[in-house]
Amino acid sequence: MPLANIPWQERPAGCSDVVWRYSGNPIIPRDLIPSANSIFNSAVVPFEDGFAGVFRCDNRRREMNLHRGFSADGFAWTLDDQPIAWDCDDPQLGEFEFRYDPRVVWLEDRFYITWCNGYHGPTIGLGSTRDFARFAFVENALLPFNRNGVLFPRRIHDRYLMLSRPSDNGHTPFGDIFVSQSPDLIHWGRHRFVMGTRGGWQSTKVGAGPVPIETPEGWLLFYHGVLTSCNGFVYSFGAALLDLDEPWKVIRRGGPYLLSPQTIYECVGDVPNVVFPCAALLDRPTGRMAIYYGAADTVTALAFARLDEVLEFLRTDSGG
Amino acid sequence: MPLANIPWQERPAGCSDVVWRYSGNPIIPRDLIPSANSIFNSAVVPFEDGFAGVFRCDNRRREMNLHRGFSADGFAWTLDDQPIAWDCDDPQLGEFEFRYDPRVVWLEDRFYITWCNGYHGPTIGLGSTRDFARFAFVENALLPFNRNGVLFPRRIHDRYLMLSRPSDNGHTPFGDIFVSQSPDLIHWGRHRFVMGTRGGWQSTKVGAGPVPIETPEGWLLFYHGVLTSCNGFVYSFGAALLDLDEPWKVIRRGGPYLLSPQTIYECVGDVPNVVFPCAALLDRPTGRMAIYYGAADTVTALAFARLDEVLEFLRTDSGG
Amino acid sequence: MPLANIPWQERPAGCSDVVWRYSGNPIIPRDLIPSANSIFNSAVVPFEDGFAGVFRCDNRRREMNLHRGFSADGFAWTLDDQPIAWDCDDPQLGEFEFRYDPRVVWLEDRFYITWCNGYHGPTIGLGSTRDFARFAFVENALLPFNRNGVLFPRRIHDRYLMLSRPSDNGHTPFGDIFVSQSPDLIHWGRHRFVMGTRGGWQSTKVGAGPVPIETPEGWLLFYHGVLTSCNGFVYSFGAALLDLDEPWKVIRRGGPYLLSPQTIYECVGDVPNVVFPCAALLDRPTGRMAIYYGAADTVTALAFARLDEVLEFLRTDSGG
Amino acid sequence: MPLANIPWQERPAGCSDVVWRYSGNPIIPRDLIPSANSIFNSAVVPFEDGFAGVFRCDNRRREMNLHRGFSADGFAWTLDDQPIAWDCDDPQLGEFEFRYDPRVVWLEDRFYITWCNGYHGPTIGLGSTRDFARFAFVENALLPFNRNGVLFPRRIHDRYLMLSRPSDNGHTPFGDIFVSQSPDLIHWGRHRFVMGTRGGWQSTKVGAGPVPIETPEGWLLFYHGVLTSCNGFVYSFGAALLDLDEPWKVIRRGGPYLLSPQTIYECVGDVPNVVFPCAALLDRPTGRMAIYYGAADTVTALAFARLDEVLEFLRTDSGG
Amino acid sequence: MPLANIPWQERPAGCSDVVWRYSGNPIIPRDLIPSANSIFNSAVVPFEDGFAGVFRCDNRRREMNLHRGFSADGFAWTLDDQPIAWDCDDPQLGEFEFRYDPRVVWLEDRFYITWCNGYHGPTIGLGSTRDFARFAFVENALLPFNRNGVLFPRRIHDRYLMLSRPSDNGHTPFGDIFVSQSPDLIHWGRHRFVMGTRGGWQSTKVGAGPVPIETPEGWLLFYHGVLTSCNGFVYSFGAALLDLDEPWKVIRRGGPYLLSPQTIYECVGDVPNVVFPCAALLDRPTGRMAIYYGAADTVTALAFARLDEVLEFLRTDSGG
Amino acid sequence: MPLANIPWQERPAGCSDVVWRYSGNPIIPRDLIPSANSIFNSAVVPFEDGFAGVFRCDNRRREMNLHRGFSADGFAWTLDDQPIAWDCDDPQLGEFEFRYDPRVVWLEDRFYITWCNGYHGPTIGLGSTRDFARFAFVENALLPFNRNGVLFPRRIHDRYLMLSRPSDNGHTPFGDIFVSQSPDLIHWGRHRFVMGTRGGWQSTKVGAGPVPIETPEGWLLFYHGVLTSCNGFVYSFGAALLDLDEPWKVIRRGGPYLLSPQTIYECVGDVPNVVFPCAALLDRPTGRMAIYYGAADTVTALAFARLDEVLEFLRTDSGG
Repeated sequence: MPLANIPWQERPAGCSDVVWRYSGNPIIPRDLIPSANSIFNSAVVPFEDGFAGVFRCDNRRREMNLHRGFSADGFAWTLDDQPIAWDCDDPQLGEFEFRYDPRVVWLEDRFYITWCNGYHGPTIGLGSTRDFARFAFVENALLPFNRNGVLFPRRIHDRYLMLSRPSDNGHTPFGDIFVSQSPDLIHWGRHRFVMGTRGGWQSTKVGAGPVPIETPEGWLLFYHGVLTSCNGFVYSFGAALLDLDEPWKVIRRGGPYLLSPQTIYECVGDVPNVVFPCAALLDRPTGRMAIYYGAADTVTALAFARLDEVLEFLRTDSGG
Repeated sequence: MPLANIPWQERPAGCSDVVWRYSGNPIIPRDLIPSANSIFNSAVVPFEDGFAGVFRCDNRRREMNLHRGFSADGFAWTLDDQPIAWDCDDPQLGEFEFRYDPRVVWLEDRFYITWCNGYHGPTIGLGSTRDFARFAFVENALLPFNRNGVLFPRRIHDRYLMLSRPSDNGHTPFGDIFVSQSPDLIHWGRHRFVMGTRGGWQSTKVGAGPVPIETPEGWLLFYHGVLTSCNGFVYSFGAALLDLDEPWKVIRRGGPYLLSPQTIYECVGDVPNVVFPCAALLDRPTGRMAIYYGAADTVTALAFARLDEVLEFLRTDSGG
Repeated sequence: MPLANIPWQERPAGCSDVVWRYSGNPIIPRDLIPSANSIFNSAVVPFEDGFAGVFRCDNRRREMNLHRGFSADGFAWTLDDQPIAWDCDDPQLGEFEFRYDPRVVWLEDRFYITWCNGYHGPTIGLGSTRDFARFAFVENALLPFNRNGVLFPRRIHDRYLMLSRPSDNGHTPFGDIFVSQSPDLIHWGRHRFVMGTRGGWQSTKVGAGPVPIETPEGWLLFYHGVLTSCNGFVYSFGAALLDLDEPWKVIRRGGPYLLSPQTIYECVGDVPNVVFPCAALLDRPTGRMAIYYGAADTVTALAFARLDEVLEFLRTDSGG
Repeated sequence: MPLANIPWQERPAGCSDVVWRYSGNPIIPRDLIPSANSIFNSAVVPFEDGFAGVFRCDNRRREMNLHRGFSADGFAWTLDDQPIAWDCDDPQLGEFEFRYDPRVVWLEDRFYITWCNGYHGPTIGLGSTRDFARFAFVENALLPFNRNGVLFPRRIHDRYLMLSRPSDNGHTPFGDIFVSQSPDLIHWGRHRFVMGTRGGWQSTKVGAGPVPIETPEGWLLFYHGVLTSCNGFVYSFGAALLDLDEPWKVIRRGGPYLLSPQTIYECVGDVPNVVFPCAALLDRPTGRMAIYYGAADTVTALAFARLDEVLEFLRTDSGG
Repeated sequence: MPLANIPWQERPAGCSDVVWRYSGNPIIPRDLIPSANSIFNSAVVPFEDGFAGVFRCDNRRREMNLHRGFSADGFAWTLDDQPIAWDCDDPQLGEFEFRYDPRVVWLEDRFYITWCNGYHGPTIGLGSTRDFARFAFVENALLPFNRNGVLFPRRIHDRYLMLSRPSDNGHTPFGDIFVSQSPDLIHWGRHRFVMGTRGGWQSTKVGAGPVPIETPEGWLLFYHGVLTSCNGFVYSFGAALLDLDEPWKVIRRGGPYLLSPQTIYECVGDVPNVVFPCAALLDRPTGRMAIYYGAADTVTALAFARLDEVLEFLRTDSGG
Repeated sequence: MPLANIPWQERPAGCSDVVWRYSGNPIIPRDLIPSANSIFNSAVVPFEDGFAGVFRCDNRRREMNLHRGFSADGFAWTLDDQPIAWDCDDPQLGEFEFRYDPRVVWLEDRFYITWCNGYHGPTIGLGSTRDFARFAFVENALLPFNRNGVLFPRRIHDRYLMLSRPSDNGHTPFGDIFVSQSPDLIHWGRHRFVMGTRGGWQSTKVGAGPVPIETPEGWLLFYHGVLTSCNGFVYSFGAALLDLDEPWKVIRRGGPYLLSPQTIYECVGDVPNVVFPCAALLDRPTGRMAIYYGAADTVTALAFARLDEVLEFLRTDSGG
C-alpha cells in the first residue's frame, strides 16, 4: 500500500473536543459532478502520491451508486461523473439495484471495497481493485438484509474478518454489530456478536464506520449510533476498542459520542442530523487522524483527532 | 384570458440545470399578511394587466385556507388578509373544514379553481371566478379521499378532464395520478390511470402540479414526487409528457427530478425538504416559463425554465 | 323483474331477536365448487321461477372472483366452477386484478351488478346482465380507493344513486358511507356524506350492505360495522332508515347491532368474527325478509327477519 | 421569595406580535458547560439579588439530567458542569434513569422543582430546595406515564394543585392536560380534566408550560401544543386562562399560537421545529413578562410579552 | 363480611395441573340477560347466604358496563338486565363513558368496587356498596391511562394499597404492575414498581387479577400475562407472592402459567385466546379456591385450585 | 440411513385434493408430555426400525425448545419431557435463548438438524446426531435475522446447500427464499435468490418447508406461504420444483395452495389459521408421501399425497 501524508488541521484554540471539524467543511459539495444530487458516506485511502476513494453519489433520480475519485492532498477531490463499472461474470449478480456507503481497505495485495449492495434487498457487496482503474465484483458476502460491512485490514488466525450490521428491508429501527469469519472472502461463518445498542445517542442502532485501526491496545473502531427523536433519527459517532485476537470482545467503549450533528451542513440536507464516518486515515509517526464522514446524507466533511487522545478518551470515558 | 409578460430571470452563469431558481427567493415571505403563519403551494394566472392568484395561507391557528392576491409583475404580491368567501347555496357544502393547495385555470369563459377541500376528509373542491372579486363554489368533484386535483385548460373530445391523486385520510404513504372525465364539470367518470410511483425521488407518491401545458409533442405536466427517508418525506418535482388526445397515456417521463429541496428556504421551515409546484406560466413567443412553487410548506418561491429545454430534457432523460 | 317466494324459516321458540339465523347454516359450504377456497359475501335476486346470484368465490390461489349461481328455493344452490366472463371493449379495463363482494339490483330494464373491482387499487366496478348468461362490463364508477358500492333500485329525481365507502389501499381502519348521483350510470357527482362511525360495534368503519329496500318510512339499509379488538376486526351488521327523497339524510339508525358473529361458522374461518350481508329479499305481502350474509369470509349463511319488526326496532332502539 | 427585576427588551419596531423574541437569542448555547450536548427546556426564578434556575442539560452520552445555574440579570448564565445531586433516603427512588424538563416554583416556604423523572417510565418527580445549594427529593407524585407536571404557586381551598399530561412510554402522539389535588404534596387525587387538543397547531397534544400566573381574571397558563406534519412534530405555544377557584375550568383559550418555530435556532437542532416554554417571569408593577423557552431541543431562548396584552389577546382571539 | 362455602369440583382423574377447569364451563353464557352481547371479566364475593357480584356486561351496542348479580351456590347466577346506577354528586364524574373489568373487595366496613372507568381515557374508578342495592361512586383513584386497579383487603401500616397497571389510550402493547398508597382512598402516592414483563406467556404486559389473598408466606396474587403472536394477543394467567409488609417486593413468581386459553370457549369468541381472572374465593378451612375468569372476552368460566398446591407451585416453579 | 415404511392412509372417497389429511389428526396433542404447552412444527425421519424426530415443544412458560421423539409406525409418538441437551464447546453459543421449527436430514454419515436458533435474534442453528442419543451443536450457519433454514440431502457440485428465509426481529411481514453454499457446513456464501412472494395465499412471505426431495424432474420443495387478512396471518402450503443442478432456478411453482387451514385444529389454537409443514417422507417404490405439519402452532398433524400426483399438479397448475 502506497504512503502519503494525511490531511490535517490543528485543533482550534479554545476547543477541547477529542474530535474536531475541518474549518473548510464540507470538503465535497453535493454537486461536485454534474449528475450528482449528493456525495457523502464515502471512503478514501492513500494511493500512489495522493489519495483515492470510492464515493457514494446519489444522482438526480436519487439512485444510489459508487464513483471513484482522486485527490493530491485529501482535501480537494475530483470525481468521475460516471459510476464505477464492475467486472462480473454472473449477470444476475451484476445487475444494478443500488450501491451505497462504501468502505475501502488495503488487504494483502489489493484494495477491497465493501458496500451496501442491492440484491433482493440490501446486503454486503464485496469487490476489489488494484489500480482504481478496473474494479472486479467478487460476491455478496452475506445474505440480505445487511448493511455497514467493514473488513479488517489483515487476517487474524488465518481468517478474514468482516463486521456487519444485520438489518431489515426498510429504515431498520434496530441494529447490532456482528463479526463473521472467512477462509477465502467468499464463504462466511463463525458469526459472533460484537456489540449492541446502549442508551442515549446509540439507543436505536449502531454500525461499524471506518476500517478498524490496529493499535497496541486493540482494534480502534469508530462507529455510528442512532437516537430516535420524535422527529426522526439522529446519527452521531463514537469509538470502541476491540480485542486484537478475538475482536468480538469489546475491551472499551466510549460513553459519550465523539461527534454529533451540530453544524448547518450536518443538520440541514436530504436527511437532517447525520454524521456518518466511512474512513479514517492514520499517520502513525505523528498519531494524526483524518476522519471522512458524510453530513446530512448530502455532503462530505472532514474531522481530525490524535490517536493517543482517542485512546485516552476510551480509557477515561468508557462505560455506560 | 388576458395576456401579460411573465416574470423572468436568466439562468445564472455556470449553471446547466434545466430549471433554475430566482435569486430573490422566496418571493412571498411567510408573514406577508398579518394573520399568516405561512404562504405557499399557491397558483397564479395572468389577469388584466398583471397577475392574479389564489394562495394557500395557513393562519396562526394553523388553519389552512385560500386567499386571493394580485401582482403587477409576478414578483411582488399583495394578498387579502381575509380568506376568499365562496358563494354556495348548500350550507352543508359551504361549511369550512380546510382548503389548501389551489390550482387556477382559464377554461372557456372563466377561471376555475380546484383545491384540496375538507368535506368529511380531503377531496377536490371546484369553484370559479370571472373577476377575482366574486367566487362561486361549484361542487366537490370527487369523493374523499383525494388531493391534487388539476383541470386541463380545454375540453378533449368534448369532455372536461381532471387529474387527481387518490389518497387516504392522513399523510398518505402512497399515491398515483389518475384522470377523470366529465360532460359538465359536475359528474365525473371514465377514470383512467395515468402514472404511478417509480424509484428514487418519486418512490413514495406522485401528484400533478401546475395545469398541464399544451405543446405540439403532448401535454407537459410538472408533477411532484416524494421519497421517504428515515427522517420523513422529501418532495421534489419533475416532468412528463402526456398524449394530446388520450392524456392517460404517458409519452415520456423524466428520470431525474428537475428541482429538489436544496436551499435553506426549501430545507428549513414548517415541513423541511419540500418543493411543491402549483402554477407554471408560459410565454409562448419566447418559450420562457415561470414556475411558482411552495418551499418547506412555509414560503412561496419562483423558478424558471425554457420550454424547448424541458422538452429536450424529456427526450433525452426519459426513462426509469 | 320476475317474482318468487323467498326462503323462510320461522323464528325459533324462545328467541326474541329481531334477526335470527337459519338452522341449516351455512347454506353454501366453502368448497361447493371444486376450485373454491371459500364462497361468501354474495348477492342473490329473484330470477325466473327461482333465484339467481353473483357469488364471491376465492379460489385456491386465494384470487377473488365472481361466479354466477342458481337456486330453485334460495336454500340449495348450484354455482359455475368458472368465474363470470365480462364483455368489455377496453382491454385495460377488462384486465383481471380482483373482483369481490358483489351486489345485484334490478334497475329499470336489467340487473346491474356492483362489486369491489381491482383497477390500480380497489374501486367500484359496474356491470349488467339481462339473463345471467351474458354479462357486460360498464365502467368503474368511481376512483380508487373505494369499496361496498351499492345502487338504489330506482332513480330519484331522475338521477341514479350509489352508496359507497371510500377506503385506502389496505385493510382500511376508517370508513364512512357516502352517496353519489349520476345522470347515466357512468359519470358520478354531487357526492353527499350519509353516515359515519359511532361507538361500539360500529366504531372503526361502516359500509352499506344489501340494496336499500323502499318502505313508506324511508329506505331501509342494512349495513355492516366494524369494531377493532386487540385481536383484529369484528364485523357485525345493523340497520338504518334513509330519507326517501334525499337519502343522504338519516332518519333513524339502530343503536344495537342486529347480528354479530357468535356461531362457530361466523367466528372460525379464513377471517374470524365476520358477518357481512350482501343481499336482502323482501316478500312484500308477508313482510318476510331473507338476508344472505358471508360468515368468517368463508361460507354463505342465511338469516331472517320481518319488515315490520325491523322498522319497529329502528323506532325504539334508534340513537347512540 | 426574593424579588428582582426581570430581563426585558422592548418589542421591535414594526412588530405587532403579542410575544416577541429577544434579539440576542439563544441566550444559552448548547455547549455552555463542557459536558453538555444541549441546554434547553429549563426553568428560572428570582433568587436573592438575581436569578437561579434548574436546567435541562443533555450530556454527550445524550443522558438527560438537571443542573443548577445562576444569573445576575437573567440573560447571562453560569451553570454547574455537574448535575444536581438529590438527597433521597430510598435508594430505589434515588436511582438515576433520566430527569428532564424542570419547572420551579416558590411555594410557601421553599422552592419546589417538578420534572419528568424516569422511574420505570417517565413520571413526575418532585423535589425541593431552599437555597439552590441542597436539593431534597420528595416523591414521584404520580404513576408513570406522565410528563409536564407543573405546580400552582399557592394552595387553593387548602389543597395543592398540580397540572400534568398523562403520556405513554414513547413519543406519545396524544395528550391532554389534567389537574390533581393533594393535602400534603405526596398523595394526589380528585383528578380533573382541564383541556385537550384542538385543531391546527395544538391538534396532536398539549402540555402545561410555566407555573401558572395569578391574575384577577384567572390563572394565566402558557402551554405548548403539537402538530404532526408528514415530517414529524411541530411544537408551538399559546395561552389559556383557568378559573381561579376551580382551575380545571377553562375560562378562555387562545385560538392562534403565540410563538411557533420560525428562526433558525428554533427550526434546526437536535429536534427541529420546537419552541417549549418552561418559565415565565412577571414584573407586576410594569406587567412585563419574560418567557424562557427551549428551542429545537438544543438551546435556551427568551421571549417577552406584556401581561395586559396577553389578557387582551385571550379576550379577542379566544375560541376554536 | 358474611361467609359461604365456595363452589367446588374436584380435580379430574389423570389431571396433574395446579389449576383445573370446571366441567360445566362456561357458567355464564354470553346472553344470560336480554341486553347482553357478552358477560365476562367479572368479580364475585360471598354475600349473605350466598354470593354477589359485579359483572362486566357488554350490550349489543358493544357498550361496556357493570351489572350486579346474585347466586346461591356460585355456579348459577341471576343478573340485572339494567346496569348499576351510581350515586355521584359531581355530574362530570358521573357521566358514563365506559366501565369494565370490575374487582370487588370487602374492606373494613363495606364492599369496594374498582373498575376500568372511562374519564377522558381509561382509569381506575372506585365505588362502594354495603348491600349490593345502592352503589356510591367515590372518585377516580388515578389519572388516565390506567387499568386493572385492585385493592388489598386490609390496610398495611395504616395505609390502603392499590395495584394498578399504567396503560396507554389504545390496546397498550406494554404494561407493568405498580402499587400506590393512600391515607383515605382518595389521594394516592408513594407509588412503587411491583413487577414487569418477562419472556414467554407474560412478555407483552402483565396486570393484577383478583384481590390478593393473605397467606402466611405473603400476598398471593393471580395475575394475567399477555404474549403477542403474529395473530394478536394471548392472555394467560399465573401467580406470584408479594411481601406481606412491603407488597412491592416480589418474593416468588411462577415461571409457567397456571391457565392458558385451550378450550373452545376460551379460544373462540369476541376476542380469541383470552383467560382473564377477576376474582378468587378461598375456603380457608379446606384451602379450596374458586377462580372466576372471563373467557374469550365473551363468557364467564370457573376454575379451581388448592391453596397449598399453589404455594408449592410457587416454591418449585419460581424463576424465569 | 435406515429404511422404514411410511405412515399412510388412502385418500377418502369423494375427495379429489392432491394432499389430504389423516382422519386421526392431530396425531400429537398439545400436552403429550407434562411440560408442554404445545407440540408442532416438528421434523421426523426414518430411524432404525421406525422413526425418530426432533420436535418443537413450547413449555408452559412459552419457552420454545426442541425435544426428541420416537415412533414405531409414524403415527404414535413418545417424546422426552426434557429438551435435547447439545454438546457445545463455546459457552456463548451454547447459551439457550430459544430453539424452534426444526428440520432433520440424513446427509452423508449422520443426521443434521437445522432450526431457528436464538443468538441475539433468530438465526439458523445447525447440529448433528448419529443416534438420536447425543446431539452436537455445530455452529450458527448464518447471521441473524433468519428462519426456516433447510439443508439439501446431498452435496451438489461438491457443495452443501441450505435454503433460508432472511427475516427481521419480529413477526416479519416480508420474506423470500434464498439458497447458500458451503464447502464445510460452517462457512456459507454464493447466496442466490430462489423465489419470492406472489399474490393470494403466498403474498406476504414464503419459507421452505421439509427437506427437498430429489426427483427426476427436479427438487420437490414444499413451502409455506402467508397471506395477511385484516385479522392476521394465514399460513398455507404449496409446492415448487427446483433445478437439480442449480436449485436457485425454479422450474415450476404451484399456483394454488395444496393445504390451507380449514379444520378446527388448524383454525383454532395458540395461533389461529396455520398449517406449517416441516417434514415429508417418501416411500419411493410406491410414491406415497407422508407430510408432517404443525397446526395452529399448537398440535402436530399428518397429511398424505402421491409423488406422481404432486408432480402432475405442478405441471398443470403452475403459474401465477
